[in-house]
Amino acid sequence: MTSVNFETDPSRYRHWKLETSGDRARLTMKVDEAGGLRPGYALKLNSYDLAVDIELADAVTRLRFEHPGVSVVTIDSALDGMFCAGANIFMLAHADHGFKVNFCKFTNETRLAIEDASANSGQRYIAALNGTCSGGGYELALACEEIILVDDRRSAVSLPEIAFLGVLPGTGGLTRLVDKRKVRRDLADVFATLAEGVRGERAVKWSLVDAIAPRSRFNEAVAERVAARVDATRAGRAGITLDALVPAESATEIRYRHLTMHLDTAQRLAELIIEGPKNVPAILGEAAAGADFYPLRLFREIDDALLRLRFNYPEIGLVLIKSAGDLDRVAALDRAMWERRGDWFINETMLLMKRVLKRLDLTAKSFFAIIEPDSCFAGSIFELALAADRIYMKSGTDARIATGPLNAGALVMSNGLSRLGTRFIADPARAAALAAGGTFDSEAALEAGLVTAAPDELDWEEELRLAIGERLSLSPDALTGMEASIRFAGPETMETRIFGRLSAWQNWIFQRPNAIGERGALKLYGQPESPQFDYRRT
Amino acid sequence: MTSVNFETDPSRYRHWKLETSGDRARLTMKVDEAGGLRPGYALKLNSYDLAVDIELADAVTRLRFEHPGVSVVTIDSALDGMFCAGANIFMLAHADHGFKVNFCKFTNETRLAIEDASANSGQRYIAALNGTCSGGGYELALACEEIILVDDRRSAVSLPEIAFLGVLPGTGGLTRLVDKRKVRRDLADVFATLAEGVRGERAVKWSLVDAIAPRSRFNEAVAERVAARVDATRAGRAGITLDALVPAESATEIRYRHLTMHLDTAQRLAELIIEGPKNVPAILGEAAAGADFYPLRLFREIDDALLRLRFNYPEIGLVLIKSAGDLDRVAALDRAMWERRGDWFINETMLLMKRVLKRLDLTAKSFFAIIEPDSCFAGSIFELALAADRIYMKSGTDARIATGPLNAGALVMSNGLSRLGTRFIADPARAAALAAGGTFDSEAALEAGLVTAAPDELDWEEELRLAIGERLSLSPDALTGMEASIRFAGPETMETRIFGRLSAWQNWIFQRPNAIGERGALKLYGQPESPQFDYRRT
Repeated sequence: MTSVNFETDPSRYRHWKLETSGDRARLTMKVDEAGGLRPGYALKLNSYDLAVDIELADAVTRLRFEHPGVSVVTIDSALDGMFCAGANIFMLAHADHGFKVNFCKFTNETRLAIEDASANSGQRYIAALNGTCSGGGYELALACEEIILVDDRRSAVSLPEIAFLGVLPGTGGLTRLVDKRKVRRDLADVFATLAEGVRGERAVKWSLVDAIAPRSRFNEAVAERVAARVDATRAGRAGITLDALVPAESATEIRYRHLTMHLDTAQRLAELIIEGPKNVPAILGEAAAGADFYPLRLFREIDDALLRLRFNYPEIGLVLIKSAGDLDRVAALDRAMWERRGDWFINETMLLMKRVLKRLDLTAKSFFAIIEPDSCFAGSIFELALAADRIYMKSGTDARIATGPLNAGALVMSNGLSRLGTRFIADPARAAALAAGGTFDSEAALEAGLVTAAPDELDWEEELRLAIGERLSLSPDALTGMEASIRFAGPETMETRIFGRLSAWQNWIFQRPNAIGERGALKLYGQPESPQFDYRRT
Repeated sequence: MTSVNFETDPSRYRHWKLETSGDRARLTMKVDEAGGLRPGYALKLNSYDLAVDIELADAVTRLRFEHPGVSVVTIDSALDGMFCAGANIFMLAHADHGFKVNFCKFTNETRLAIEDASANSGQRYIAALNGTCSGGGYELALACEEIILVDDRRSAVSLPEIAFLGVLPGTGGLTRLVDKRKVRRDLADVFATLAEGVRGERAVKWSLVDAIAPRSRFNEAVAERVAARVDATRAGRAGITLDALVPAESATEIRYRHLTMHLDTAQRLAELIIEGPKNVPAILGEAAAGADFYPLRLFREIDDALLRLRFNYPEIGLVLIKSAGDLDRVAALDRAMWERRGDWFINETMLLMKRVLKRLDLTAKSFFAIIEPDSCFAGSIFELALAADRIYMKSGTDARIATGPLNAGALVMSNGLSRLGTRFIADPARAAALAAGGTFDSEAALEAGLVTAAPDELDWEEELRLAIGERLSLSPDALTGMEASIRFAGPETMETRIFGRLSAWQNWIFQRPNAIGERGALKLYGQPESPQFDYRRT
């Protein structure tokens, strides 16, 4: 299996066309059948694989940073009568279990990034369904603020997965149906078991789409909806260019500008080592906006490293998070950002940091944060430690950690709470007091509950060695299930439901012979034979 | 596989001793090693299987109806130094997938019944851990309002499943840890991966137990806690005796007093046919309390039928819910109950109805409600239709349905909402208006969104035939995942997390070779060989 590369840019897109014009943008899907990530399947009918979704994720991020004047993004298709056929089935049927699961997770994170852009960046997405929209294609539409469907007696929205493939629709589709669009549960039941889907007035009545328009005035209807949502006051904003990260790679190391990832695949252990900022810029915000801004660059690097860990290093079980740098400088940079949070560029940077931290929460690896004397776990970088399953801090040294304004709620988890709020779910007052800011040596940190253990110098090596060895000996499946449960205490949201409830059911179904066995529905798709089910209900 | 029988009573218990004395009760676990449901394993060290949990579920229900004067129930063990070793591993390792899943579901429903008794019946449970308490045993303790652990330098609470078996702890244990007891997530991580568990002061500090007491004054400490919680004002209440249901059984039918279940295993189709009440008693409540009270008897029968469907008829995929009787009489009985809801017996009956309806929501079968002219789907019986995945009502006839006070919130789902509230999650005002009560013919019911479809007499047979045939053709796994997602729109609670998030992860793990393969941890438990894991993370 060759490594997946997550870096791209519009000049290299094979599946999407991104056009911007002042306050509006258009993202057109035109999947190159031969442009799949792996050989062996053709991406017909705008069906997609990871390669297609990597470009979409890139476009959504670039729209925010490079085209901040855009306030409405229309997603449509260049094909006639077909918006998107969904995830490519032949790709899914032949992918191994881990890839399927990570593919579904990534596509959902991309759809959540669209929803985050609509909710927090003022970039509203409209799905202009100029043809049939199936499965994962409808999931993409569901991620938009508004769905307009052409009314031509033919084009339908549908979730045909249960009927055709014996798996759940679009991985998060059922949650978006009943929680986001609040479709009545019995209608959702009919819709999700009806291969041909629903079209026309009925699709509006069931709340599956927001509007329909005949083909003759479809473009006009879309233009009207765009015009109604445009925010012309943003149009003057000048964007920045996100340069490529191009890390230096070897078999045991991936070295970015501010981040080094060590990989010991034999031990199944990785290290993420963050280098703190060299300075705090005198001017922050739009006036000084650029891809070199330390937090933006660092968190883009972390994002890339996490995606590589998921897809390219499945055998890695435990990731140690370390940092080296000036603690007070990180804290000062955080405070400066917080003061300028009304600035679009600072806001976008913080939103990206939030999404990257969520990606960490949702990564099926164990994380231990390791805090030593030269660490710089303050504020936004301490947030990486709070995202870890355990935090070890060396006591009897001058190691310190610090909390600050970015720990208070700017970088919320999928459950809608800050990581301090989740950690101290039993004591919200303590979470608030800690988020107000402070610096802690190991004794104070342990007392405050900010770290899991604080061994002294005599025990440090041995205790870490034991904890790491023990973690790496445990069942990787049990750890995945445990972490997916323990990390998200407190309220559930559409997001936590997608990754907790629905993903877990889908993963189960993806393991069942009824889907992936020799006579399973996913395996036999497109072949003349019918699937044979073991009909016992579980 | 022989059929499981869910009926028992204290005179037949082999694993528990139930003692009551005025306002307090004691439930002592003393598992008969040879008393397992199936041959092939010995229930050593108070480990349990379904047979043990059927008795516990029976005891919890009987305490409410037969001993309503009891306000505190102490759960302890008759073994020295061992409270409970958890679910029996040899039983789990050799059970098929469906049985494992249904066993875990049932045990969690029993633990939720304990929590419901504490919250809504004023029967508070105290776990008196006079010895080590592991896995599912700790899950049982977590279900109690208070946990007291003996402090003897030996007895610990523990969740050793991840370390020993490569599966999730106690099926709902992780949720109860972080959501109910709000244990800090990194401490929960350490605890759930630490085979030997936590004891003494540390167990209190981590909030794993509420108090500890040395062996010399353990009984005294428990007695003090009991005395502090007793509500002596209830002691005068006279209970009723729950008689056995003893239905008439054949290969194709189970006939109860008010319910008949038809079973067509070849077609994988069952019917539940409810017979309406013959009268509305002139006097309701404690003064007329008895096991013959129609709603109590009917819902006990439904409960028994649902459990048989789950365990004894795995091949059944679709259940049609029908009723026959006087609609207005059901509505009148509901109203009479609602007026007397302050009465302990009526309250207990409604709580039982609530739990049975939740059992239906959580049953992994499809349900269609079928409404015809002689149906009596009013109020509490209409709630069974609202619990179904779809509702078909024959139009052009005098078929009617009715809503009433019991649809408003007395019989809430696991998500904390009424079924009308869940159905109309997009429109809470409509849910409230409909719950205020009304009678609907098919046209009005369709217009109000109370039924899914209302075919007329000409189409009725054919439309039902098609819908049933289509449902029975679909992948049973995909349907289970879909129903578990669509049925529970809206808020999540500890309950929905147990059955949605955690069960789904556990089911996935229960399918993985790392647990159940020839070299899997669950399979190899108790044998000299070590498990061999595929360490790729998913």
